[in-house]
This record gives sequence, structure tokens and C-alpha cells, in this order.
Amino acid sequence: MLTIGVIGYGYWGPKVVRNFSSIPGASVATVCDVEQAALYQVRKNYTGVSVTRDCDEILNSTEIDAVAVVTPVSTHYDIAKKALLNGKHVFIEKPFTASSEQGEELIEIAEKKNLTIMVDHTFLFTGAVRKIKQLIEEDVLGELYYFDSIRINLGLFQKDVNVIWDLAPHDLSIMNYLIGKKPVAVAATGISHFNDDIENVAYITLYFSGNLIAHFNISWLSPVKIRTTLIGGDKKMVVWNDLVADEKIRVYDRGIDGHGITREKMHNIRKNYRTGDMWCPRVDDMEALKCEAEYFVECVDKGKKPINDGAAGLEVVTMLEAAVKSLKMGGPVIYL
Amino acid sequence: MLTIGVIGYGYWGPKVVRNFSSIPGASVATVCDVEQAALYQVRKNYTGVSVTRDCDEILNSTEIDAVAVVTPVSTHYDIAKKALLNGKHVFIEKPFTASSEQGEELIEIAEKKNLTIMVDHTFLFTGAVRKIKQLIEEDVLGELYYFDSIRINLGLFQKDVNVIWDLAPHDLSIMNYLIGKKPVAVAATGISHFNDDIENVAYITLYFSGNLIAHFNISWLSPVKIRTTLIGGDKKMVVWNDLVADEKIRVYDRGIDGHGITREKMHNIRKNYRTGDMWCPRVDDMEALKCEAEYFVECVDKGKKPINDGAAGLEVVTMLEAAVKSLKMGGPVIYL
Amino acid sequence: MLTIGVIGYGYWGPKVVRNFSSIPGASVATVCDVEQAALYQVRKNYTGVSVTRDCDEILNSTEIDAVAVVTPVSTHYDIAKKALLNGKHVFIEKPFTASSEQGEELIEIAEKKNLTIMVDHTFLFTGAVRKIKQLIEEDVLGELYYFDSIRINLGLFQKDVNVIWDLAPHDLSIMNYLIGKKPVAVAATGISHFNDDIENVAYITLYFSGNLIAHFNISWLSPVKIRTTLIGGDKKMVVWNDLVADEKIRVYDRGIDGHGITREKMHNIRKNYRTGDMWCPRVDDMEALKCEAEYFVECVDKGKKPINDGAAGLEVVTMLEAAVKSLKMGGPVIYL
Amino acid sequence: MLTIGVIGYGYWGPKVVRNFSSIPGASVATVCDVEQAALYQVRKNYTGVSVTRDCDEILNSTEIDAVAVVTPVSTHYDIAKKALLNGKHVFIEKPFTASSEQGEELIEIAEKKNLTIMVDHTFLFTGAVRKIKQLIEEDVLGELYYFDSIRINLGLFQKDVNVIWDLAPHDLSIMNYLIGKKPVAVAATGISHFNDDIENVAYITLYFSGNLIAHFNISWLSPVKIRTTLIGGDKKMVVWNDLVADEKIRVYDRGIDGHGITREKMHNIRKNYRTGDMWCPRVDDMEALKCEAEYFVECVDKGKKPINDGAAGLEVVTMLEAAVKSLKMGGPVIYL
Repeated sequence: MLTIGVIGYGYWGPKVVRNFSSIPGASVATVCDVEQAALYQVRKNYTGVSVTRDCDEILNSTEIDAVAVVTPVSTHYDIAKKALLNGKHVFIEKPFTASSEQGEELIEIAEKKNLTIMVDHTFLFTGAVRKIKQLIEEDVLGELYYFDSIRINLGLFQKDVNVIWDLAPHDLSIMNYLIGKKPVAVAATGISHFNDDIENVAYITLYFSGNLIAHFNISWLSPVKIRTTLIGGDKKMVVWNDLVADEKIRVYDRGIDGHGITREKMHNIRKNYRTGDMWCPRVDDMEALKCEAEYFVECVDKGKKPINDGAAGLEVVTMLEAAVKSLKMGGPVIYL
Repeated sequence: MLTIGVIGYGYWGPKVVRNFSSIPGASVATVCDVEQAALYQVRKNYTGVSVTRDCDEILNSTEIDAVAVVTPVSTHYDIAKKALLNGKHVFIEKPFTASSEQGEELIEIAEKKNLTIMVDHTFLFTGAVRKIKQLIEEDVLGELYYFDSIRINLGLFQKDVNVIWDLAPHDLSIMNYLIGKKPVAVAATGISHFNDDIENVAYITLYFSGNLIAHFNISWLSPVKIRTTLIGGDKKMVVWNDLVADEKIRVYDRGIDGHGITREKMHNIRKNYRTGDMWCPRVDDMEALKCEAEYFVECVDKGKKPINDGAAGLEVVTMLEAAVKSLKMGGPVIYL
Repeated sequence: MLTIGVIGYGYWGPKVVRNFSSIPGASVATVCDVEQAALYQVRKNYTGVSVTRDCDEILNSTEIDAVAVVTPVSTHYDIAKKALLNGKHVFIEKPFTASSEQGEELIEIAEKKNLTIMVDHTFLFTGAVRKIKQLIEEDVLGELYYFDSIRINLGLFQKDVNVIWDLAPHDLSIMNYLIGKKPVAVAATGISHFNDDIENVAYITLYFSGNLIAHFNISWLSPVKIRTTLIGGDKKMVVWNDLVADEKIRVYDRGIDGHGITREKMHNIRKNYRTGDMWCPRVDDMEALKCEAEYFVECVDKGKKPINDGAAGLEVVTMLEAAVKSLKMGGPVIYL
Repeated sequence: MLTIGVIGYGYWGPKVVRNFSSIPGASVATVCDVEQAALYQVRKNYTGVSVTRDCDEILNSTEIDAVAVVTPVSTHYDIAKKALLNGKHVFIEKPFTASSEQGEELIEIAEKKNLTIMVDHTFLFTGAVRKIKQLIEEDVLGELYYFDSIRINLGLFQKDVNVIWDLAPHDLSIMNYLIGKKPVAVAATGISHFNDDIENVAYITLYFSGNLIAHFNISWLSPVKIRTTLIGGDKKMVVWNDLVADEKIRVYDRGIDGHGITREKMHNIRKNYRTGDMWCPRVDDMEALKCEAEYFVECVDKGKKPINDGAAGLEVVTMLEAAVKSLKMGGPVIYL
């Protein structure tokens, strides 16, 4: 039985507590938050869980095996470092850390102490992402051409991080997982509309070696909510609309095989398009965070390296840093 | 009666001939194309129109008042220059010219000879664009924050121009017309997937002075066709979906007034969102090219400066050049 | 403070308990269910609520002011009758009773004892229905022509009632509330596909005096879920799609004024159609059952006659009976 | 070469002429209409076609092999009878005739004279219907449970026929073709909103032997256009939306196998639902009327019995008569 302390009980914390409480193999012992109202909610809903306003009670507890860090990113490093140094496994909100240096240090400590870090890239555990991963691994899509994501809505303006640090971790972690290879460069543009330096609209392009490009359109200032990702391969293409209840994933038997086609032939290529069937595979609708919680317990128990380990979290942080650097410079390529 | 010669009868030429034939005040006298099959179609459908494979018959004709240039962009400059020098008004396909120098020279000749150049930015004459223009002019949207366009499909790969030169003229001309002010800089990214230097996927960001940003996502390699533009203002926001038969334009009474809001207040700004009604104004569904043809006749007759004159066409060409330059360099800002 | 006992804690009971627990002016004292597992859930979630497997503990309690009857319809009459005879107000699931005779008797008892009966026609308290009611009351739609509803999905097959008794109470109660006048006759068709006499697909037509018709398409056997209602008036028409998160209600400025039009003119009437704007009014998204719970407390406190009182529930039961009678006879009109 | 005379050049006639002109094996010799403006259009568009205002010129012509009757239904019988008696094959608009007696007589004459009657049930030749037919024939859907169609819009009010005679021939002919067995009874309801006896909203239920039911919702008075048909089988279910450009047909791997399920088991049947993949087969987008024209030529040439012969047209007329009879009586079952 993995005994867990949860630090932070704002928007996401209650979901973390609920899921770790509901699975076999784990129990939540203590929840920490600075707000009394939050702790009141914990006591009301979970009779066996103790509460505290002092996170050291969790970090220093000898009974707690793992700490879930569900606090603003600026605090991740300090809390996670202390947890690791005290021998505790760490389940930590995305983005992993506020800088790549911080991430590297945490990974180093965890390795030395043989502890598990799992970065909460929840989307990796959705039925949709797992289904797309399967399609890619089984070579249904073929060689990938592009990954094009839109994640916009009339969203909560964060006060400490811009829209890139807020929204892009979702898409970057999904992309990294699905594509399975690292981009070589990033270029980003964007703007802050409200007289500060916290961009609320941004566009990121990632270049890979070979024929692959990725692009992300993220915004807190859209009148409509859109969460759509297009993934094009030379065999088939996927459109993933995360906002519909059913039929989230559409697999199109459409494409073009451009290998070896000369420019002259290209002009008439429309005739060579495949425009075949479309297919919506059934997608598992189990709660993603529950799958992830179970996976955390499994990784800790078996000493297994998570797909969303510290290194995966660090990759995302490195991209975020480079994207923001490019954006601040007006869009030039930054090599990773 | 404006007597028109049409050069080029491929995909778009038949529409130009049909529309100029159908309006009062204009008649199509001659159509030129190098393909006999095209000329056969003309003869079959239009009894009073003569045909030729030699465009000089049109360019040198003393009976022809205006020339419609519906040929590949690489030929625009030579044909239009000769037409203008021979005293003919010019209706010319987008993009205006293959370079800004060419465009500048054509404008200069037209001005000297007091002739009209109209660049065929057809979308400006759709009911949707005219309705959005009206919403902006009547200050329904308020101060503009962003212009975000997606124009993707499984499209015809051009052999001589990339996806930017092929698709972006639509969106750039629409943006210029709607926003009514010039961008100061452009940054673009993109890729060619098929072993040549003709990019088939591209992303363009345009920076304006003040709080405004524009972005364009264009692709020939999407399994689905999307033509959606979001325009956000501080009063209202518009979503224009050009692919639906009805309800192309949605006006959302949603937004956020960020003027003077401090960073601390920003965090809780969600509560200040307006999330009011949505409204689909009725959009005129008259054929855009027909409106434009009538407008061409009117501009020539009355010596009126078109909204889509040579200068408007040149602005688009200048942006295309800068966008491609940025793309080839990996995305840095190019000042306009 | 209204003290409430809840009988039945299956699918809907937990929602009733949660809502009555969350509003000021009411408290849930006791919950009854025959399943121990259900009572375990109550104890886990509500510390101050007592539980029982014997509903007489609630019905005979001197501390309980009102009883919520959340049991199968076959039990409604017995439970509600005992509650009323014991001086308790009754909040009762739809459909009100298993027969109109039962409903009449309950209404009579309640009147004699000056008690409130509220039938849980939850939809009346949704933002969507309240908005449409407002549009009708303010004569935005004009004189009503038709009410056409589809409520189909791959649904739970009930073992004791057919699809009419299961699904139609929603639509009939909505129709009665919105239209505000009684139909004069009903005709229904339908089928049972599974070798019993419990119809799983049915169609109901209701005739009103004057120019109004209503139709209901209900099914447990559709591969897709549809909940759409069209309401046509001579001024405007409404399409209500209850399954979308936003823009549930669309008001179309479309229609036809046929008053006094002769048959000869009718033929060319298309030209007289209004095809104006479409408008999505903002709809309040407060939980309907919570509004209804507050309204129940208010009605009891102030002796106010609910819009969804016993008489409203009885009207629905009367229509259900007549619809099933028509269906069993093959579809003839049954006068109400 | 089949020489064709076309009688009627209103809304549909031009399409008939265009398609019979475009296929090998047929030529349109003469077009008849009472309106000079219509004949002017014919002359303008078809140089080799003669025109007349007197249909006897066609009916008595010795050079014409077949007559296309594209006139109002009230004239079908007289024109088609004369054509058949004069030895001409007949291609005739839906509905076949104004009464079943007329239809029977025409069939009898055609049989005696060994002539082909084809009723223009155009929808049977769409890619969508042919694909669904294939799915049914290959037993993809399994045993059919229901056929549920909606065909509503803000439509042209006809002056001589009600909405049943106007719209239902489409759906009834499609249903007959797809299901391949005859209904045993019909019940219909509906209303006229405009002070005449021409119903503009109607609902039709058809009963078949066994487990199958069909329902049709047709209206000229809907603010939105809907053309959707659900076809449920015990293996799979189809949703056909005829108004979308792509993905017209969705095949759902959903359903329920109720054979032999007892009532007690039925209650928990939700767990037995299959909710598998959805699949959009590619649908041929060739113009339906062109396919049908080619098929007419083929049937005449080879003496082949069309799927849409006089008997198929008569079946539809018989159902229309019975449906209207039921409607006028208030909805009772009429046996066929």
C-alpha cells in the first residue's frame, strides 16, 4: 500500500485526491493547503484523511511514501526537491518545473536515490491518446508528415505564467509521446493584449529532422472552445476532436504518396489522392487521471520507468523555454 | 458597354467569362487559351464570343476595352503590362504579380495612362466578408485583438508556387480589407514534404502596431477541408465558417475588457467574462464574382478607385514575399 | 426549515438528496431504500442523514414535513397516499401515477388536507425551457403552429413500463408548460421488437383546437442520441438541441404568414418567406433540479400552487394513457 | 440510339434534358412546354433540339422512341397513356400517377405493348442509397428493426398536392427499395395550417409483418432543413444525413440482440449493448439522374425490368392514397 501526501487542493488537487483514494494499492494520508476552506472540503469528503497547512508535515512524515505536488509551477522545485531528498516518490503537476535546470537537478536526485518522478501529463492516459498511439505504433498512419494542434477557449488568465506555459504542456507532452522523437528546433510568435508581458495568444512551430513539422495554436481569448489535433501520415490521417462525447477520433483513408514524385507529376497529383472511408474507432472512456494514478502505483511498486517520467517532463520544459525565447525575439528558430 | 477580352480559360476563366457575360454594361468579345479543348468549350457555350490561341489578338485589338488576365501568376506581368501600354483596363487574377517590383511597375503605368487595375480578390465580394466589414465599421467588434485563419484541405499541389502563394492571397486580402491597416512585420514557418522546395504546409504570423496579431494556417495536406476565421475584438468576437451553407457568421457577445487591469486582478478575470448571446446575421448569398464583375464595370465607367486595386494587390504580394523570405530563414521577423 | 424524507436511492434519488441538502430552507433527515449498498452510499456521503429500509419510518415520522418519492411508478400511489394522509407534502417522480384514477385521488386528498404535491418534471426548470417559455410569453414566436420533438438514444430498456411511459413524460410536461393549452386528441403508433408487449419505439401525435399540432418521436433503439425539439410560430421558430453545451436554443427569424392567403397565391409563397437572422439567446445553466428543489420549498412555505402540481402531473398521465390506448389499437384518434 | 421527347421544362425538366443529352445511347429530339420562356432556354442551350408548345407533336412523332413526362402529377395519366398507346417507352416523374387506378391501367397497357415504364425515383440512384442497399444485401445491418426518416424544410407550398404527395414519394420509394418487402398497413396524422385542406405537416407510420416499423416526418414548415434517415438492424445501424457533403452515411456498430431475452433480463440490458466503432464508407458522388438516365436506356435496349418500374411507382401511389385516407380520418390503421 502506497501512502500518499497531497500538497495543494485548489482546482486539480481534489481530482488527484479522489483518484488516488479510489484505487487499490494507494491511500491518501494527508492533504496540505494554505486555505482553510480547502481543508474543510477535504475533511467533509474524506473521513480518514488528515489535513495540514504546513507542507513540511507531509515532506517530513515517516509514514508517507510518495508526495503529489499539485501547486503552482513556481513552487514545484522546492517542494519536489525536499520530497526526493526525504526519500519520497514524486507525482508532480505539469509543467514539471519552472526551468530546465530545476528539472535536471530533480531528475539527478531521483536517480541517485532510486525514486520515481511522474509528471502529470494526464492526457497521455486518455482513451483518445492511447488509441492514436496504437494507430501510430501499428503503422496505420504510416510515416508522419505533420502534427497540428489547436487549443483555444475563453480561458482563465493566469497571473504568473503565459499561455504557452499554461496550455502548451498538454500538447507538447502528447506530441512527444505520440511521435516518439525529439524536435530539433522551435519558432514561436504571440502577443499579450493586456499591457503586461504575459502572452495570451501564441503560435509555436516545431521542426523535426526529416519530413515532419508540428504546430500549436493556443489562446485564452477565443469566443469558442476548440481542442482539435490533426495528425497526417503518408498512409492515413487522424482528426482528433477532444470536445465531442463520441467519435473523438476520425481516421481518414486519405492522403498522397509523394515519394519520388517529380515536380512535373505533382501538378496533376489530385487524381492520385486516396479519398476512401472514414473510420471512428471506439475510444475507452475511463477517467484518465485514474489510469495514471494506477500507473504511478505500478511504476513505484515495480521500479518501472514511467512514460511520463522526469525526463519526459524536462523535455517539455526545455521546449517551453525555447518557445518563449523565440517568441520574445519575434519568431526566429531556436535549436534545441 | 465595356468590351472585354479574357486570357486564360482553365479552372477560373470559365467563371470569369460566365459572370462578365451575364451582367449589363459588359460583353465578352474574345477568349484566348492555348488549349483547343478550352476554346471548343467557349464556342459551345457562347455563340457570340470569338476565340484565339494568340493573346496578342486580344492585347492588340482596337475593339477591346479591358483585359481579364486569368493565367498563371508567372505570366501576369508581361500580359498586364502589354494590355496597359495598349490602353486597356486590367482585371487580373490573384496574386497580382510574381514580385513586388512587377506590381509597382504595373501600377505606375496604369496611373500614367489613367487605367483601372482590379486584382481579383473575389472573397471581398462575398456576403460574409461584406457583413464582417460592416460589423467592424459599425464598431460592433470594438478594437481588434486578433485575426486567426485556417484554410486547409487535401488540395491541388501547384507545380510553380508554394502553398503560401496559392492560398494566402485569399486570407491576406481579406485581412487587409477588414482590418484596414498595414502590418509592420511577418514571420512564417512551413515545410515541403515532397523533396522539392515548394512548401505545402505553412504558418504565417503578422504583427501590427498596437494590440493586434494575425495568424494563418494553410495546407494542401489536410484530410478535411476547413475554412474558418476567428476575429476577436474587445466588444465582440466573430467566427466565420465559410463551408456551411447557412449561418456562416457567428457573432459572440463574449470577451474581456483588459484595459487597465492589473496583473493581480487578471488572475480572477474569468468572472468578468461576458458570455452573452450568439447571433448569426443573415448573409447575402449573391455570387461574389458577379458582384465583383459589376464593380469592375462601375469602377472603369466612373473612374472610381477599386478597393481591390493594384495597390491592394501589391500589398498582398509584398506580404507573400516577406512571408516566404521568413519561412526560408526559419521564421524570424521580417519588417514590411 | 422543511424536513424531508427521501424514499428511493437508485439512479435519481442521489440527485434529489444532493440538491435538497444543498439549498437553504430544507434538510434531508432520512433516506430509505431496500438496497443496503444504496444506504451505505448515503451514510458515506451525508453524515447527518439517517437511513432505513422501511419506508414507514419516513411516512410515520412526526419530524418529517415532506416526502420525496423517487421509486418506480407502480409504487407512487401507495407511498404518496400514505404520505398525504399523514400530513406530509409530496415531491414525486414523473410520471405522477400509474393511472389517472390514482392521480385524481391523490390530488383530492392533497386538496382536502391543504398539502402540496409537486411532480418532478425537472425539464421545466432548465434554462432552456425557461427561455423558450419567455419567448412564447413575450410573443416572440407568435401564434404556434407545431411542436415537434425527438428523444431517442440507445437507452435502458425498462422492465415495467414502455418507452412512452418512460420518455414521453419529459416531452409532454414540457409541451403542456410551454403551450399552456390542452390538446383535444391523441394518436400513437409504435412497436415492441423483443417479443413482449413493452413498446421500445413510439410516435405520438397530439391535436389541439385551432392550428396547432404536436408530435413526439421516442425510442430506446437509436444508435445516436438525439434530443431536439422544433417549435414553429407564425413569427419565429425555435430549434432546441438539448445535447449541445452551448447554443442550445436557436431562434430563427423565418416563417410564413399564411393568414388569408388563397390557394393560388400559396404556390408562389416561397418568395414571401422571411429568412432573416438566427439568434442564440444565452441560457442559464444552473442545475434544474436545484431550482426545482428551491421552488418546492417556496411553494410549501408560501402555500403557492406549483406549475408542476398534481394537476399538471395528472394531465401528463391522462395523455400517456390515451397514447398507449391509441397505440394498442393501431393509431386511431383518442379524444381527451 | 434512343430518341427522346421531353414534356415539361419547369424545375426538373432542364435536369432531365441535360442528363439524357449527356449520355451515350440517347438523344433528346424535342422538348415541349407551354411557356415560351422555357422553350427559349432550350433553344439557347441545345442547338440540335426542337421545341414545341403542343405535346402531341411529341406523342405522335414517329421518330421518338421514348417520352419523359416531367409535368404535374395530375397530367401524368393522360400523357403517359397516349405515349404508351403510341408505342413509346415512358420515363415519368414521381409520383407515378394521381391514383392507383391510373397506375394500374398504365402498367397494363405497357405490359400489353411490351414497353418500359420507369418512374423517376431519383434517390434510388444516389451513391448513398446504393451503398445502404449494399449494406443490407450483404447482411451488414442484420434483420431490420426500423426505418425512420425526417424530410423537413421551409419548402415550396404546392397548390395542388399536400406535403405527403410532394415529399413522401422520395422516402417511400427509398424504403421500398431498401427493405424489399411490402408494408401491411399505414397510419398517418398531419395538419394544414393555412385554412385549406392541403396538409403542410404530416407524420406517417408503416407497419410491416414481423418486427419492422417505418416512420416519416415530413414538413414544409421547418426553419431548418433536415434530411436524415435512421435504419436500425439487429447487427448494425445506419444514420444517413443527405445534407452533408462528406460522410453522408454512418454505420454504427451498436445495437442489442433481444431475441429470446426475457423481461427480467431486459432491465439490465444496457450492459449488453454493443457500442463499437463507427464507420463512414465512401459514397460514390456521381449525379443520380445521370445514372438513372443511363439505366433507362439500358432497360429499354435490353428489355430489362427496372427496379423503379411502373409496379414500384404504383406501390408508392397506393401508400400515398392510404396515408392520406388515414390522415383525413384522424390516424387509424389502413390496411394495404
